[in-house]
Order: sequence, then structure tokens, then C-alpha cells
Amino acid sequence: MTKELKVAMLGFGSAGKAFAKLLMDKHGEILDKYKCDVKVVAIATNSKGSMVDEDGIDLELAISDVKNLNHFDKKRKGYSNLNSIEIAEKVNYDVIMELTPLKIFTGQPAIDHIKAALNRKKHAITANKGPIAWAYEELRDLAKRQNSLFYYETTVMDGTPVFNLVDETLDLCKVTEVNGILNSTTNFILEEIAKGKAYDDVIVEGKERGFIEADPAMDIEGWDAAAKTAVLLNVLMGANITPVDIERKGIEDITAEQIEYANKRGNIIKLICHGSIKNGKVIGKVEPKEISQDDIYSNIKGTSSIVTITTDLMRDLTIVEHDPEIEQTAYGVFSDLLRVIRFNKIIEY
Amino acid sequence: MTKELKVAMLGFGSAGKAFAKLLMDKHGEILDKYKCDVKVVAIATNSKGSMVDEDGIDLELAISDVKNLNHFDKKRKGYSNLNSIEIAEKVNYDVIMELTPLKIFTGQPAIDHIKAALNRKKHAITANKGPIAWAYEELRDLAKRQNSLFYYETTVMDGTPVFNLVDETLDLCKVTEVNGILNSTTNFILEEIAKGKAYDDVIVEGKERGFIEADPAMDIEGWDAAAKTAVLLNVLMGANITPVDIERKGIEDITAEQIEYANKRGNIIKLICHGSIKNGKVIGKVEPKEISQDDIYSNIKGTSSIVTITTDLMRDLTIVEHDPEIEQTAYGVFSDLLRVIRFNKIIEY
Repeated sequence: MTKELKVAMLGFGSAGKAFAKLLMDKHGEILDKYKCDVKVVAIATNSKGSMVDEDGIDLELAISDVKNLNHFDKKRKGYSNLNSIEIAEKVNYDVIMELTPLKIFTGQPAIDHIKAALNRKKHAITANKGPIAWAYEELRDLAKRQNSLFYYETTVMDGTPVFNLVDETLDLCKVTEVNGILNSTTNFILEEIAKGKAYDDVIVEGKERGFIEADPAMDIEGWDAAAKTAVLLNVLMGANITPVDIERKGIEDITAEQIEYANKRGNIIKLICHGSIKNGKVIGKVEPKEISQDDIYSNIKGTSSIVTITTDLMRDLTIVEHDPEIEQTAYGVFSDLLRVIRFNKIIEY
Repeated sequence: MTKELKVAMLGFGSAGKAFAKLLMDKHGEILDKYKCDVKVVAIATNSKGSMVDEDGIDLELAISDVKNLNHFDKKRKGYSNLNSIEIAEKVNYDVIMELTPLKIFTGQPAIDHIKAALNRKKHAITANKGPIAWAYEELRDLAKRQNSLFYYETTVMDGTPVFNLVDETLDLCKVTEVNGILNSTTNFILEEIAKGKAYDDVIVEGKERGFIEADPAMDIEGWDAAAKTAVLLNVLMGANITPVDIERKGIEDITAEQIEYANKRGNIIKLICHGSIKNGKVIGKVEPKEISQDDIYSNIKGTSSIVTITTDLMRDLTIVEHDPEIEQTAYGVFSDLLRVIRFNKIIEY
């Protein structure tokens, strides 16, 4: 018998729209494989209105309305003025999907969205790393108490399976260390400076090419990397820390001379995320480091990223994501949704 | 309530003994986490006798007997003259673990061992890649008909999750291409020649250091890489091919001059495994290729290995195993065993 799964999306930016497209594309396959009819019953945005329709929102129309009107069509069936927290609290859904923009120093209002869902015994999926960087244990424990599922694969390396890899394939392994290159803006800047370009020119060019955000401070000062490090250490090592607990050094003081000097010795400077255990406590660090050209870390370019997970039983295991696009982010939340569907199927069975 | 799981091990070489040690080490944890009491009820060897004991073999004694006597102790309770196929056919076990040496051109007798187990509706785990390279579809279909589980994570990259990664974390993704460096002997030889050493000296030194087998022809001519490629393509791409179907070129004709010439252009020669789809058919290839020093593949050294799996939804995803030891091989079959245990738990539940 076919079951229905109702999804409420909070946020409808590029990742949300890419997810909607992927869902339309794969709706039939999910129905075939899992006998599950996935419906998006709510979409909340901050400035474009909201949509709520228990029969399922026409995602094609939703995408084209936003494209054509830069707003949901107020005349469309299901148009709503509910905001994101109202949707989380009031709409009848099974899974909430948190896709709102990151607030790096608080994790809010995404944390409240997820709490609202879990308090109602709904499942939660987040692509927003704020909640995992700031409130992981609280949300995880709440989900457990409520018998809800809570997934967040996309928060580090988009759809690349990092958390699922450890969860599903490294059973009984204890994570003892984590390393990675996880911020593409700093990766891009360091590479361009190494080519001999001036810092300011690199910033201007990077903004033009879409590699650097309007305000790059969060990337350059290492805050984005620190948030990702906090996420990794909270989930994989039970650290219970926040981004401000990460020992953090950005690339703002790295000079062209330093890069050149490192280069002469066969090294390349990269912003490295690191976590390990010292005196029984998990500590996290973000800092520029010299990497030998013989090391695969030296070959992680542009928007590619890399994570190495060290465990007692499998030692070092490295996973690389190559030049991700928004479709890979969409696959991340999509794969979390498939986990929810598989879990529901097991319960039935 | 605690459940019992009876394991029959075929083969007790270095991987078998490392698995036995890991199992002893983790027996209590498995009991706690899964309420499952794992017992090894049979161990078959070709030249050291066999052990069969439904109450569970004392693995510590089995290891020390083989160490001290180079044979199981004939006076020990449970000593048996049954051979591997007799054990597969007659002993009362739940899971067979195929750990016998690879016969690269037939996959036998490992295929028959696994068939014997599946025909009796037992589960099967293989670390031996022969059965997957030569008879994957037949064994998979047989397992399905018998409602048996059939796992083979260790056959490529030891315990590194390659098949489980695709199975458990890339749901609904279609694999369109596979690439990798999967043979450490050729990797070692090419590196040493690049350092200016003579081919024959490299072989002698490699044998002394344990990097090269007594008869290195299977590695040098690319047969080992072809078998691994066949395994990857059979499992991930439904190729239904064998090692002889792989277009294969070894490193036997690579000269120091070629390596040097490649080097001058910033390239390194590696033996690359490749699979893709041409005219609707999966084709496999093993050949030495020039890799740019900017590519992470150029930095896969010695016994490390790398696989890149290309899918429609997640594009390229790369996984690296660093300098594995026999403990990582043991973890591969151990993790397959945990999957069997988890599956049994779901069934109960």
C-alpha cells in the first residue's frame, strides 16, 4: 500500500529550488521503490511569501512563479502569509526541511524551527549547519525522546556522505581524529595569490566569478571553517562545542611572500580544519598550514573539499568532493529524506 | 534476549587470524549493542587441519596452536579432518566467511564454498574477490532466492566502505563511471623506478620488504587490477563480466625513460583501473596512464589506494585508503558481519 510523506520546506533559495527539481524528477522512482508518495505541503520564505497546501504544492509552478514574479503568486491556490516558525508549529507535515540561510553566530532561527518540529514528534532534516554547530546535543536528545529522526548530511560537504559514512559503514569504530579542507573561498584566495595576483584583485575577481561572497570576512577569518569543524566534532566525536570554542586563525595575515617561501620548499598553504582528543577532551582548530606537494591535501583546489576521518579500527579514511554544484547540495537533503522513507518502511515491516 | 550467531571461517591466514583477534576484542561490545553472541563454530584450513565445535572454538588457543605447531592441535577438543567444502556443506552455522586464497583465473573453490552455504539458506561473506569477479550475478541471485545475505566489502580496498558507501548512502544514484588505483605492487614499482632504480633491483628489494609477492606476474601484468575492476563493475554497474573481459595492459613495458619523460611534463605514470558505459554496455580497462601532478591520483603512494565513483546525482566522489594493514582487511569482513547482525535484529524487531 502506498504511504504519503508530507514535507515542509523552510527556505526556497537555490538549494531549495534544486531539491524541488530533484524531487519532481525522482517522485516516480520513490513511489516505485518505496511505495511512498512524497508531497511538499508547505514552503516558507522570508521575502517571497509562503505556500501551504495539504494536497501538495505544484513545485513546477512554485519555481516558475518565484522566477517570474520574484514572489509566490498571491492569486495561486495555497498562497499563505504564514512565516517559517508558524509553518513549523502549525502545518500538518511529517518532515521539516530546514533550508534557511545560516546565521553563523547563533544558529537561529533554524534551531527554533527544528525544535518546533521535533516537539510535535515530526522528523527534521537540516542543510543549515547552524543548528548542528550550536545545539547538536540538545536537538539530538530531543529527537531521541520524541522518536523522531534528525538528519544533517548536507551541513558538511553537501551531499557527500560524511555522517552517513560513519553511521552506516564504520560500525563500532571510534573516531579519534578529523582533518579537512572545507572552505572553498580561502582555498580559492590562497591559490590565486600563489599565482602572483594581488590580494585585493583576487577578492574583486572572486566576487565577479561567484567564488567569494559579498562580505567574505566569515570565510577569510575562518568562521565558516570553524562552524564546519564544530559540526564534524559534535557529530563524530561527541564534542559538544560551538564555533567559538574552535581555536581559529584565518588567512587574513598570510602574505604572498609566505606562500612563495612555502612553495620553494615544495609546500602549499591551505586552511586546515582539525579535531583531536587531548587529555580526554575534544579540541578543534582551524589554521593555515603548510602541506607537502606530495600530500593529496595539496591537490584540493577551488570548490573541492576533503575530509579525513581517523578511527581506531580503520585508521585514516579520506573522502573527496569534486567541484560541487547546487545539485549536490540538493542531493544531500534528498538522501536524508530517503533515509526517513527507508526508516518508515522498516517500521511498517 | 540474546541471540547466537554461528560463524564458519574458511581460511585462517593472516586476515583470518586478524579477524579472530578483532572478534575476541569486540565480542562484548557486540553483545551489549546487538544482544548477539557471535561464536566461531568452524575453521577450515588447507594444510593445518580444521576445527569444528558447536559450542564455539577458543580463538586464542586456535591462534596460538597454529603459531606454535604450525597446525591445529590434533589433541584439542574440536579438532577435525573435514575440509573446507565439507564444512560449508555439513557444519551447523549461520554465516560462512570465505577467506581462502584467491585463484585469479577461476574464482574456485571459493565460488563452490559460497554456493554450498547459500544453497543451505546460510548467509555468506567473502574477502576473496574471485567469486565476485567470476560469478557475482549467479551468487547474488541465488542469495536473493534463498533470502540469504551476501556481502563482500573487503574484496576491494579492504575495510574501506566502497560497496556499502554506494548501497547505504547513494540511494537512487546511478553509477556511470568508476576509476581507481587499486594495485599496490605496480604502484610501488613505478615509484621506485621513478627514483632511478633498475627494474630488477626494485623487484628484489620489493620482495625483501614484503611489497611484492614471490611471483609478481599477476600484479605486473595487471591481472590483479583487472580482477578488482571486474568486481567494481559487476557490483556497481551490473556489468556481468569477468577479469578476462577487461581490456588489460600491465606495466611490464614501461621504461625508466618513459617515466622520466612523463615527469618532465609534470606527469606521473600510474596503473589506472577504469570502467564506463559505451553504447549501452559496461566496458572495463586497466592500463598505465600519465597523471598530472596536480591530480590527487598522482599522490597515491605505496599501498594506499583510491577509487572515484561517478554517479548521475552526486557526480565524482573519491575515497582514499591510506597504507592499510591486515587489521583493515579484518575490519572489512567484521563490518560485513555486523551488517548481518543488524539485519537479523531488524527482522526480529
